Amino acid sequence: MSGEIAHPTIKGEESPSFRRTGPSLIKRPDGWFHEISDLWPGQAMMLKVNQVLHHEKSQYQDILIFESSDYGTVLVLDNVIQCTERDEFAWGNRYQEMITHLAMNSHPNPKKVLIIGGGDGGVLREVVKHNTVEEAILCDIDEAVVRLSKKYLPGMAIGFQHPSVTTHVRDGFEFLADKEGEFDVIITDSSDPEGPAELLFRKPYFELLYRALKDGGVITTQAENQWLHLPLIVSLKKACKEVFPVAEYAYTTVPTYPSGQIGFMVCCKDATRDVKKPLRFFSDEEEGKLCRYYNKEIHGASFVLPNFAQTALR
Amino acid sequence: MSGEIAHPTIKGEESPSFRRTGPSLIKRPDGWFHEISDLWPGQAMMLKVNQVLHHEKSQYQDILIFESSDYGTVLVLDNVIQCTERDEFAWGNRYQEMITHLAMNSHPNPKKVLIIGGGDGGVLREVVKHNTVEEAILCDIDEAVVRLSKKYLPGMAIGFQHPSVTTHVRDGFEFLADKEGEFDVIITDSSDPEGPAELLFRKPYFELLYRALKDGGVITTQAENQWLHLPLIVSLKKACKEVFPVAEYAYTTVPTYPSGQIGFMVCCKDATRDVKKPLRFFSDEEEGKLCRYYNKEIHGASFVLPNFAQTALR
Repeated sequence: MSGEIAHPTIKGEESPSFRRTGPSLIKRPDGWFHEISDLWPGQAMMLKVNQVLHHEKSQYQDILIFESSDYGTVLVLDNVIQCTERDEFAWGNRYQEMITHLAMNSHPNPKKVLIIGGGDGGVLREVVKHNTVEEAILCDIDEAVVRLSKKYLPGMAIGFQHPSVTTHVRDGFEFLADKEGEFDVIITDSSDPEGPAELLFRKPYFELLYRALKDGGVITTQAENQWLHLPLIVSLKKACKEVFPVAEYAYTTVPTYPSGQIGFMVCCKDATRDVKKPLRFFSDEEEGKLCRYYNKEIHGASFVLPNFAQTALR
Repeated sequence: MSGEIAHPTIKGEESPSFRRTGPSLIKRPDGWFHEISDLWPGQAMMLKVNQVLHHEKSQYQDILIFESSDYGTVLVLDNVIQCTERDEFAWGNRYQEMITHLAMNSHPNPKKVLIIGGGDGGVLREVVKHNTVEEAILCDIDEAVVRLSKKYLPGMAIGFQHPSVTTHVRDGFEFLADKEGEFDVIITDSSDPEGPAELLFRKPYFELLYRALKDGGVITTQAENQWLHLPLIVSLKKACKEVFPVAEYAYTTVPTYPSGQIGFMVCCKDATRDVKKPLRFFSDEEEGKLCRYYNKEIHGASFVLPNFAQTALR
């Protein structure tokens, strides 16, 4: 995940009033990284730091890369943990597997795929696992995320090496502005809805996506956590439903994310499509090789919401 | 959840080598509770503390109760967060709903129910929501947990007020020693498998449970987290399968638990029972009133494992 866009807040539109605590917590005397943020007040994740590998302020965000004691290399944007190396080797990256395969397997034949954000390369790596893919295009606003992931997170950035991949360092809104009926799948792998990624959670963005998709096209977007941000998800789903005939919320567990889970909106232009049931499968053998987390049963189960969320998102 | 039993480690049996960092972190200068433990090395949850309400060392464990900034009253045993008040009002207590209703709804007619541990009263509260229940018996080794929960966590402890409830302050092994064919459902709501609760994760305990159950009886037990403790779960499932013809692992998300989730073993004496499919349902109206988290779809979905865990637990 990486920040995507730096537009000012749209006036007159209700803005989630998130203020993030600054990334001033790198070299704490106790040797732990504390993920303190107004996005999740009163709670925080800590990871033990062996050493800071890199720290810079790019044009768009604060980028911190450190070696942790138990999670391998960790990428942090604006003080929020984006991914850890342990994800890769122990469990598969469930965030990246889920945001990718929920979309890809809800499309009958995804040939041309766009990723907005995702500069670490992890989603790209998942996309090119599908042998239907002829073109995979990634557009991230921040060259620094791409550059540093290639250097420090080679297991993620491996996706960039695939021959069908093109990378654009550009504002996602700008990139989408002249696109019409081009893509089978668009995946928005963004950071949280404040700062650079704020507008990626609003209706005008979904209208751009809708137009850029071919008929029957599918999108997934990062859609936050039902424990922490249910009102945000309610308005996000509303925005999606005003644009797409099909818009469903799914979620998965991610141990290093706040409250241990993250959600997705899965939307489709085809009103008859049930995105909860995968249209395509990996064979059992492929699935075993390609996925550490995702499988066809998890696809469906990820849409089963607890009562409180089901009621709110009805 | 509360610790249950203080037997020494059985010699010759392999012991999970967990050492817990001592509960010396209460009054930190930064005003946060840090849940640092060797059970989850290199990571920790932080909760912001408004004030410490109570702190004592009972005969069995260190008990800390504090008022947090955003999670209400928090119960901590041996430095591990057990439950928070916010769970109750915002989301329903998914841990307690799941460990209870997974068992209760996998039994056709649960009349006599035993809870081992669970001294906070939360599981009891869920058990007595089932109108089949004639007797609900709770056995916790630590009177202090029961006493303090009644004082500081009335929303949890409300279960103790139900007329069908009996409470025993006693060692669970001792309590079970002379029980045979008595219970329809036994729920073990224990703390983690080191210290007082260690033996509740071993085969001799499951043999006691098996004998104490009536024909067709069902148990659930706290069964840790597949991210953090998969080898432990593998050996736990093996122990259960040596005793019960049906033994399945399920899990749920709990934001304040390490890595955001917790699992359960669900076992049944009847080899033909599919515990993944609830035998009984709450009506939609009841479900809406009684459960903030659990529903009949979540029951099934909670058994759908990611690839890496499915493979390990096959």
